[in-house]
Amino acid sequence: MTIADRWLLPDGMDEVLPPQASRMEELRRALLDLYHRWGYDQVMPPPVEFLDSLLTGTGTELDLQTFKLTDQMTGRMMGVSADVTPQVARMDAHSLKRQGPVRLCYCTTVLRAKADQYQGGRSPVQVGVELFGHAGLEADVEILRLALASLQAAGAGEVHLAIGHIGIYRSLVQAADLAPEQEKAVFEALELKSPGELAARVEASVADPTLAAMLCALGELHGGPEVLDEAREAFAEAPQAVAAALDQLRTLYRGVAAEHPEVDLYFDLAELRGYQYHTGMMFAAFVPGYGQALAKGGRYDDTGRAFGRARPATGFSLELKLLASLIPSEPRHDGIWAPVEGDGLAEAINALRQQGERVVQALPGQRTGPAEHRCHRRLVQADGGWQVAPLAPSTDQA
Amino acid sequence: MTIADRWLLPDGMDEVLPPQASRMEELRRALLDLYHRWGYDQVMPPPVEFLDSLLTGTGTELDLQTFKLTDQMTGRMMGVSADVTPQVARMDAHSLKRQGPVRLCYCTTVLRAKADQYQGGRSPVQVGVELFGHAGLEADVEILRLALASLQAAGAGEVHLAIGHIGIYRSLVQAADLAPEQEKAVFEALELKSPGELAARVEASVADPTLAAMLCALGELHGGPEVLDEAREAFAEAPQAVAAALDQLRTLYRGVAAEHPEVDLYFDLAELRGYQYHTGMMFAAFVPGYGQALAKGGRYDDTGRAFGRARPATGFSLELKLLASLIPSEPRHDGIWAPVEGDGLAEAINALRQQGERVVQALPGQRTGPAEHRCHRRLVQADGGWQVAPLAPSTDQA
Repeated sequence: MTIADRWLLPDGMDEVLPPQASRMEELRRALLDLYHRWGYDQVMPPPVEFLDSLLTGTGTELDLQTFKLTDQMTGRMMGVSADVTPQVARMDAHSLKRQGPVRLCYCTTVLRAKADQYQGGRSPVQVGVELFGHAGLEADVEILRLALASLQAAGAGEVHLAIGHIGIYRSLVQAADLAPEQEKAVFEALELKSPGELAARVEASVADPTLAAMLCALGELHGGPEVLDEAREAFAEAPQAVAAALDQLRTLYRGVAAEHPEVDLYFDLAELRGYQYHTGMMFAAFVPGYGQALAKGGRYDDTGRAFGRARPATGFSLELKLLASLIPSEPRHDGIWAPVEGDGLAEAINALRQQGERVVQALPGQRTGPAEHRCHRRLVQADGGWQVAPLAPSTDQA
Repeated sequence: MTIADRWLLPDGMDEVLPPQASRMEELRRALLDLYHRWGYDQVMPPPVEFLDSLLTGTGTELDLQTFKLTDQMTGRMMGVSADVTPQVARMDAHSLKRQGPVRLCYCTTVLRAKADQYQGGRSPVQVGVELFGHAGLEADVEILRLALASLQAAGAGEVHLAIGHIGIYRSLVQAADLAPEQEKAVFEALELKSPGELAARVEASVADPTLAAMLCALGELHGGPEVLDEAREAFAEAPQAVAAALDQLRTLYRGVAAEHPEVDLYFDLAELRGYQYHTGMMFAAFVPGYGQALAKGGRYDDTGRAFGRARPATGFSLELKLLASLIPSEPRHDGIWAPVEGDGLAEAINALRQQGERVVQALPGQRTGPAEHRCHRRLVQADGGWQVAPLAPSTDQA
């Protein structure tokens, strides 16, 4: 990343210099074009909303991440968008009100009050898609495939895709009927991925030995597709919803593995990221060398309920700055260097630019030459007209 | 504009729905591509900066327009960018530190605390260019031409270009040696474009009759290029800087009129917009039917001084939402409708998408059809494979 001036700029509020900004622009276009081809319509959510509509049904984590502003025109509190997904759900439910499945995509800068686990610091460029209105797994398979196609478009080679399902954990703790602080203790132990800690906390709070064994098993169930078979055995006596969630994961596996044999697919049944708003499958895609997930998503039905329409919803998002760093950006030396003046020069430059050429015109007295301005050719007068010629090493100046 | 939910959203914080968002994306690309071809490198300024670096040397107007935030990590005050230009000047002076002329462009959403004369409400999408490091008029001519090329790219037909020069007014009030409140009174009368009010205020505060006559004349000097000749006479006894400014305007006129005979060029010597930061020529481009200028710019030398490097600078900016409304956006019905499933269907869809086609796949039980999803063709099984066929009116459903 060509990011400078950390001392001058607030932590995580980055400026992007050339050529990295062009690389991000290219990637933005590649992704939005990809989503267009898959039938997703672009929307631009407002950068600021009233706090009550912005945070409806999103949980405390997003609240803490949201910069608050006072609206001088109404005195009401506003928030700067920290996550586009709930905004797009509101747009689907309230602004568009379309019948049937609705596919939307976006690319926009959001702000976060604290630089946390997210890459992109406190000013990530969030790009993503949402598919509303279809509860079936076909929608989730489409979203998983499109996430993988996005990483491919960004130049990712080896991709690891981790899939989980929030319904498994949710059904087990519901059956165990835990008090809030007990559930919190179990939740944290699972997040810590510490089997010893998990066993101790489950033992302390879950009376039913079968349920206790199943909650402890959850911490071990991660790996290839064989995990789904192991889970079927481990959860044989679990509530029906657990078996249904496992069936869903099996269907997703078949839908994705056939199309993407090159992707390393694995399951993590104790993955609890986004527990507050996810309602079904959830996933994260990783690329070797990057500690953070490059794409994150899952199902989050009924977010639009607060806006008058509970709708099935599934989608994912990526962070453009992080994604753009997958491929190093080299400045391209593809310009044509034009002199300060000459007969018919303006017309010649116009014609070249209309053909798509990059033409940099020298300014009088300029001391930098074509190389500093990434030109490898020059415009020279010849035969009564203007011609593009290679840059002679000896004539480096205008 | 496809903007909904004004009751739900803060005034001027707009959401953009399909198809207007796509139209804005197209225009964004057309403009950034244009700037690339003219040798301008894209940068992404930070959306938030510490207040002291954000507002250095920018005047009170920008301060009032800037949303303030407290940085929870340092306790320092930050501001959300309300105008990209001073940020780009800082990037040129401090981050890039390149020798010679530097050409930069950007496209980014800014926030403004109050919805004022700017279109784009309180969340304009600012797109523009800056040319640093060249004090000569060649840079201003390039900027004027590029502004006109931008409007052309956006589909503007008839364009009116108003050019002024802050040096004329500035030299006259300096020579008149006015007290601050006197200058404010004269300034306001000129802004009101009221000759009677101007004469009264000038009489009350300017002792020298020659200077008083010249300040009063200023209010009348607007019109075609003949205004420059009238001004030469009216300002025959003015300080030398006034004659120099008039010479500059004459050179700009020659530089632009030859290239753009289709543009209605006029001069307004009492134009004072951006008085606090402009240092030379300034301009605004208008299109019939729009009360606001569609492009605004001018010279603003030495903004980078606070960051260690005083540099000549000239540039302009546009507001993308307003500009996109020049051409109404019609949703394109160019998609291909694909059924839910079938042998080899996924491969056929992939192949079409790789050719750049937009393919919308039906989901099981879907009640909306190809028309609602802007498809005018469909994928059908034929001869053991898949073929694109026109949409039969009787088969509107998947």
